[in-house]
Parts: sequence; structure tokens; C-alpha cells
Amino acid sequence: MRRHYEKTDLPLEQVRRYLESGPLVLVSSAWQGERDIMTMGWHTVMEFRPSLVGCVIARSNHTFELVRQSRACMLNVPTVDLIDEVVGIGTHSGSEGDKFERFGLSAEQQEGVEAPAIAECVASFGCRLHDDSLVDKYNFFIWEVVSARVAHSPRHPRTLHYTGDGEFMVAGKIVRRRTPGILAKEP
Amino acid sequence: MRRHYEKTDLPLEQVRRYLESGPLVLVSSAWQGERDIMTMGWHTVMEFRPSLVGCVIARSNHTFELVRQSRACMLNVPTVDLIDEVVGIGTHSGSEGDKFERFGLSAEQQEGVEAPAIAECVASFGCRLHDDSLVDKYNFFIWEVVSARVAHSPRHPRTLHYTGDGEFMVAGKIVRRRTPGILAKEP
Repeated sequence: MRRHYEKTDLPLEQVRRYLESGPLVLVSSAWQGERDIMTMGWHTVMEFRPSLVGCVIARSNHTFELVRQSRACMLNVPTVDLIDEVVGIGTHSGSEGDKFERFGLSAEQQEGVEAPAIAECVASFGCRLHDDSLVDKYNFFIWEVVSARVAHSPRHPRTLHYTGDGEFMVAGKIVRRRTPGILAKEP
Repeated sequence: MRRHYEKTDLPLEQVRRYLESGPLVLVSSAWQGERDIMTMGWHTVMEFRPSLVGCVIARSNHTFELVRQSRACMLNVPTVDLIDEVVGIGTHSGSEGDKFERFGLSAEQQEGVEAPAIAECVASFGCRLHDDSLVDKYNFFIWEVVSARVAHSPRHPRTLHYTGDGEFMVAGKIVRRRTPGILAKEP
């Protein structure tokens, strides 16, 4: 089931389509010849324009120093076919070796940031550090998405949503409703 | 399908079980005899102990002033049977009248905060304002959950996950994996 997705650009203010629903993401980063990937579930969309995303990256993660130094990262959205990679990446430290090699994932360059995108993910969002004022207190990074590449098929990717204790909810069916001005935040 | 859920206390550090997967929540609040409900999708778990949740509540929402003044709110988790209420609440302003009455929802008192819980939701988290340092700049509130009440049936509630443009993903099947130390943040 693993494949490399063909991707095209997504308007930056539409990043919410992929992140608002709460999927686990794989955070990739690079700094001075080293790279890492971590599994992350504590994130939220914060603004449409500029396209802002906030997330918690705990200090104990190898990724923490790489993103802090490089002031950049890539947020990659995996689907259920990558669940074993998502678990493996989340349960091993980057200090044990390069995770791209260990999990057989393909690094791709994407415009805007040096952090490598993961070809096996359906979407990759290149981020530059926008505000680090809450990093010391909460490990909370506010990113500006500067580059968004997404696969157009499948239209509704089967993303993974962690609920703790080894249980993952897989994105289910889609229900449609007319939502004029819902959340009072549509751009 | 609408019903009042029987709820019991949840240990506060387990709030992530309900919020980490990214469900739409109904934010209820009260201040000086007025109350309101809003639909909100921009939130993230930030810490286990204390149990912290960050979220964006745009200034244009009637709820903004109520939570800012009362420094409290209730985060209620609705399921797919409430989709029309979720849309109606998200597309009307509290300035047009009381939303509990308009949408036939039942307010319940819950220990810890004055904001009313919604009986028709499967989980309700009473929150006190923990940090407002990012409210002026990003409308970002950091809450401490001080009271957590959840229904034990269904075990996996069919929550709603918004992806924009009138499309809602409904929580799908559960997949299990052993995840020792995943996210390096388990308490």
C-alpha cells in the first residue's frame, strides 16, 4: 500500500483542510547534516492568512533541537497504510540513527524550507518558525506554513487520529452540510 | 438519536483521549446572566499534568467576551447525531439569542466552573483560564481542565472532525498497536 504520492500546490490558507481534523503528523527536520522524524499529535491551526499552525514538540524529542536551531520543519500527513512507521517513529529516538533509513522512507526537497518532505505521506507542509515565545514555558512552537503540497487522490485520505493507550482512530466517512460562515473564521 | 449521557469523572491527565484526535467541540460559557455556545475546531492538548488545552476563539465570536470576562469555559464534545446543532451553532451568533433554547440543548452544572455543560454531549471539560499571554496577538487561550466528565458508552464516540467547505469527517474504525512511550509524552 505504501506509495509515493504525486502532489501539487495547495493555497496556503487551505492548510486547515488537512490539519484541522486532528491527524497525527510526522515532523521532519534537518540541521547541520543531521535529520530526524517524530510522530506528533498535539497541534492546531491558528490562522488562515498568514497560515499559522501551533504545536507542542517536547524537549525530550531529538527533533526539538533540530527545529529550534533550524527554525524550520516539515509537517507530513501519513495515512493508515503507514501506521507501523508512525508507531515505530514515535517509539524510537532519533539519537539511535537516521529514521528515513530505518523506516525506509524517501526524503524529498520541497520549496521554501530545507527540512525534507516524506514522499510516502499525502501532504507536506513546509514551516518556518513564526513565534517562539511559548517554547520555553510549554514547548509550544507557532509555525508559518510557507509551502503546501498535497496529493489529489485519494480525495479524503484515511488519516490516523491518536486517542492514547495504543488506540488509533482512522478517518471515517464524510458528511456534508451547508456551513455559511461556520466558526466565523472562514477566509 | 439525541440523548442525555450518563457521565462519570475522568482522570484529568486523560483528557487527551477525547481531544487529541481533533474533534469539533462546543464551547459553552456564562457571564453575568448571559450564556453562549460556539462551535470550535482549532484546539490542541498541551500538557498532561496540569491538564492544559490551547484553543483559538476569534474575537468576532459572541463567546469571546464571555470567556475573557469569566476566565472559564466548558469544552463539550458532540457526536454525529448532533451535526445539525453543531452547524446551526457555528453559523449563528449568540447575539441573536440564547443558543441553549434555540437548539433545544440542556444546560447542566458541573463541578469546578460556572459555565454550563451540555447534557447531549458525550464529554464535558470544565476549564479555567491558565494563560492569556497570546490572546491579544492570536486569540489563543490556554486553559487548565479542572473537571472532566465523560460517558462510558459508546466506548468510541462518533465525533465530528471538520475539514472546511462544509465537509465533516466522522470518526471511523479503531486500530490498535503497542505504543510504548509513543510521542515521548505519555504520563
